[in-house]
Amino acid sequence: MRKQNDQIPFIMLDDKNAALPLFRQIYKAIRAAILSGEFAPKMRLQSSRLLAENLGVSRITVVNAYEQLFAEGYLEGKTGSGTFVARELPETMLMTKNSKRKNDAEKFGLENLQLSNFGRKLESKNVNAVRGNAQVLFTPFQNGLTAVEEFPFETWAKIANRINRNPSKKLLGYGSSQGFAPLREAVARHLKSARGVNCTAEQIIITSGAQQALDLTARIFLENGCAIVTEDPCYLEARNAFSATNAKVISIPFDEEGLNAANIPEESNIKLVYVTPSHQYPLGVTMSLSRRLALIEWAKANNGLIIEDDYNSEFRYAGRPLASLQGLDSSGRVIYVGTFSKTIFPALRIGCMVVPPDLVEVFTNARALNDVHSSIIEQAILTEFIAEGHFSRHIRRMRMLYRERQEILLDECEKNLKGLLEIKKADAGMHLVGWLPEGVSDLEVYEKGIERGLKLSPISLYSVNPPKRGGIIFGYTAFNRKETTEGINATAEIINEILSNQKE
Amino acid sequence: MRKQNDQIPFIMLDDKNAALPLFRQIYKAIRAAILSGEFAPKMRLQSSRLLAENLGVSRITVVNAYEQLFAEGYLEGKTGSGTFVARELPETMLMTKNSKRKNDAEKFGLENLQLSNFGRKLESKNVNAVRGNAQVLFTPFQNGLTAVEEFPFETWAKIANRINRNPSKKLLGYGSSQGFAPLREAVARHLKSARGVNCTAEQIIITSGAQQALDLTARIFLENGCAIVTEDPCYLEARNAFSATNAKVISIPFDEEGLNAANIPEESNIKLVYVTPSHQYPLGVTMSLSRRLALIEWAKANNGLIIEDDYNSEFRYAGRPLASLQGLDSSGRVIYVGTFSKTIFPALRIGCMVVPPDLVEVFTNARALNDVHSSIIEQAILTEFIAEGHFSRHIRRMRMLYRERQEILLDECEKNLKGLLEIKKADAGMHLVGWLPEGVSDLEVYEKGIERGLKLSPISLYSVNPPKRGGIIFGYTAFNRKETTEGINATAEIINEILSNQKE
Repeated sequence: MRKQNDQIPFIMLDDKNAALPLFRQIYKAIRAAILSGEFAPKMRLQSSRLLAENLGVSRITVVNAYEQLFAEGYLEGKTGSGTFVARELPETMLMTKNSKRKNDAEKFGLENLQLSNFGRKLESKNVNAVRGNAQVLFTPFQNGLTAVEEFPFETWAKIANRINRNPSKKLLGYGSSQGFAPLREAVARHLKSARGVNCTAEQIIITSGAQQALDLTARIFLENGCAIVTEDPCYLEARNAFSATNAKVISIPFDEEGLNAANIPEESNIKLVYVTPSHQYPLGVTMSLSRRLALIEWAKANNGLIIEDDYNSEFRYAGRPLASLQGLDSSGRVIYVGTFSKTIFPALRIGCMVVPPDLVEVFTNARALNDVHSSIIEQAILTEFIAEGHFSRHIRRMRMLYRERQEILLDECEKNLKGLLEIKKADAGMHLVGWLPEGVSDLEVYEKGIERGLKLSPISLYSVNPPKRGGIIFGYTAFNRKETTEGINATAEIINEILSNQKE
Repeated sequence: MRKQNDQIPFIMLDDKNAALPLFRQIYKAIRAAILSGEFAPKMRLQSSRLLAENLGVSRITVVNAYEQLFAEGYLEGKTGSGTFVARELPETMLMTKNSKRKNDAEKFGLENLQLSNFGRKLESKNVNAVRGNAQVLFTPFQNGLTAVEEFPFETWAKIANRINRNPSKKLLGYGSSQGFAPLREAVARHLKSARGVNCTAEQIIITSGAQQALDLTARIFLENGCAIVTEDPCYLEARNAFSATNAKVISIPFDEEGLNAANIPEESNIKLVYVTPSHQYPLGVTMSLSRRLALIEWAKANNGLIIEDDYNSEFRYAGRPLASLQGLDSSGRVIYVGTFSKTIFPALRIGCMVVPPDLVEVFTNARALNDVHSSIIEQAILTEFIAEGHFSRHIRRMRMLYRERQEILLDECEKNLKGLLEIKKADAGMHLVGWLPEGVSDLEVYEKGIERGLKLSPISLYSVNPPKRGGIIFGYTAFNRKETTEGINATAEIINEILSNQKE
């Protein structure tokens, strides 16, 4: 029996594993010895009794470690006949110690991996300002943020708590990929009355924000060899989603009436036209009725579809919100995209789309394949929030607040940026565009803004054809009077600095 | 003045709009008259004062309706000079009445729309059992469901309420597409200790369930002209995600040690191998150590990557859970996919992946483009739930419960299905596979099950090469003794019925 003891090196427990349970320490020590080649294949191990004795631990501790090693294939052997290092350890297993990396975050040198076309477009060197890993802080004048401090969280929490404490089973298993049915009903009612959308709940698809709606639509229709038309300038994340499919993105400038269908080139392979008719993003133009109708005609004549991104139409400060383009169409040529990011808060990640009945199944199946569905409990909370009237009430309150915040922004610009920035009151939206003096680069303003803790998004980033003048997007909805005042002061300093540098 | 009154037909308010505000009723009536051609282009409308008088409403009501119609381009004219139907209404706008559909759900006949390759694969006629629109009820013996009635909702609701009542701003705006940083930390700690995954929080990507992880991986690597290897039979929704990219899916049978890398064909374009090494889905095999190592070697030699889907490894009833394949790899060749659907509840839609540091950016960018990120508040709730120890405690409790439920299932099969179903105890997982008598089709059993309110998923649905015998997947975790007993009784009746029909 003593002989066996000499046969194999003594197992050393590593101090750095001291916090682990004993059996785990033993497991790791033996595993390391096998992987390093110290314990060769077919080598006999000490019996669990002997090893326990040697290590001064209970036998069950060693048995546990051995069992784990058996289960994982490091050891083999039958009760009674002894315990051996497995005979069939591939060569390379023994070499793993040589390829150990210095630290966990170190890269492996996988540069030769072949990504798909889609994958290559998303490598960082090729990505143009996708949101990516950046946490968006509430930095003036970041656009698309809401006045979160004004959201009725007490009410939201009360509804959430009611549902979370005792959820019905239908909120917990796998649900419909089309979306939680009561939410689809509530959304259809809201879109019909507030947006003139012509739909039933059967046409609603609940998405994880508007971005997923755009991505799904891109995947379902676009690929190499076909094309999509967008406005120029255009919402960047939409354009990124379209171009990632490898389709051609045709960017068309527009005038004060919006995109003109007559300017769409005659190419047989244009499948989609992406527009923001209520309030062009980023320039704020409202598409005129005749242009809307002409675009619908184009779609019918060219077997195309229109994506109507109605991202912030709830916020109109004069007159009533314009009815949706979708509501004008009687041919099923419009895919309507909406979002709750601008009305609830962005982190919620719930949006919606209205698709012609013909396309409900393919969108639902695509959503199932993409990520099954959105959190059902959150969908249920939102449903109650809408049904109890809190949603409409909150929008009405925010409409007043945002109108006031736009006025504050304009007042501050008048005080500090007169002659330096051309910026006009708008009847709708959550941002204004300020046009810079000729010769001042919006990218330079943007970069200097970052240094001073400002997010002054430049129009040229959103443009394919360079704009005649540089422009800055001023989101105003998430910032109070103090933040706006300080932000505009800093913006004025930046522009003045650039101008005085130019004179030198 | 009276003359004007004769000039245009009187506006009729439609009874079906009676619930709308008055100005909205007027708006709709005039809009309908214009769209139907009843009000021709350039026709002068009654003054708002006159129309108000005629309709017996206040003037402001009519002014509101007119303003909306002006804003939308139906009307034109200046104050004082009168109100006219717009002159530039495209022809087709007037034709919309002719194309009115009988009801909203009616289809538009868009059969000629050209979908992408991806889109075509997701048309219902081409989809093989994607979850789609079906709400999953807790039907015996549906697999992948949890014992939701045992989930500590009081605790969950308490954490949620704390966060919902007074959320910090960082939980409300746009967040990191990689995932909420504290959750990534908690997940990395859990995966290291429970699964032997070799990772830091920087390698974790939080996803909307495991399905999104599979879909993102497929999109980043696969496309027409390359290939992926899967086990056969294989998790259906994974195979669907891969084949939707238009890549070739190579299905390889496996033995009791799991997939053998030696059987992977020598094709230079194989980019990925998808495996479920801890507990093969659906057959339950554990991949042996030597097969794991051989697979890693294959990946290194062929510039490939392995997707390790570790979907339910938390539930092991004998021995310790096997360490992950990822933990064996020192070359960055494994993408690890995990999910909280099987440990929290499916409707949550939070999963995770561990990717080599080299691929973090491309995955993060792809997630940003797909749907930006998961709900941050839900990520924060889950973080607390893990950090406070409730997660581990719940898993331990469920491990005992599921073990017991497996025993109940086996007892009932022994009582009612002896000789009819070959089903064996398993040390891990959430389901067992029962093999049918020769000649009994699992698809027939499945179909008869549906009629009786059972979900008896047939192995042949998951198989590319037809299995030698029919098999049924029995998920047991979500069903109590009564449900299991009744379900097995009904299953026995179904099989007996099929056998007696065959004898006739």
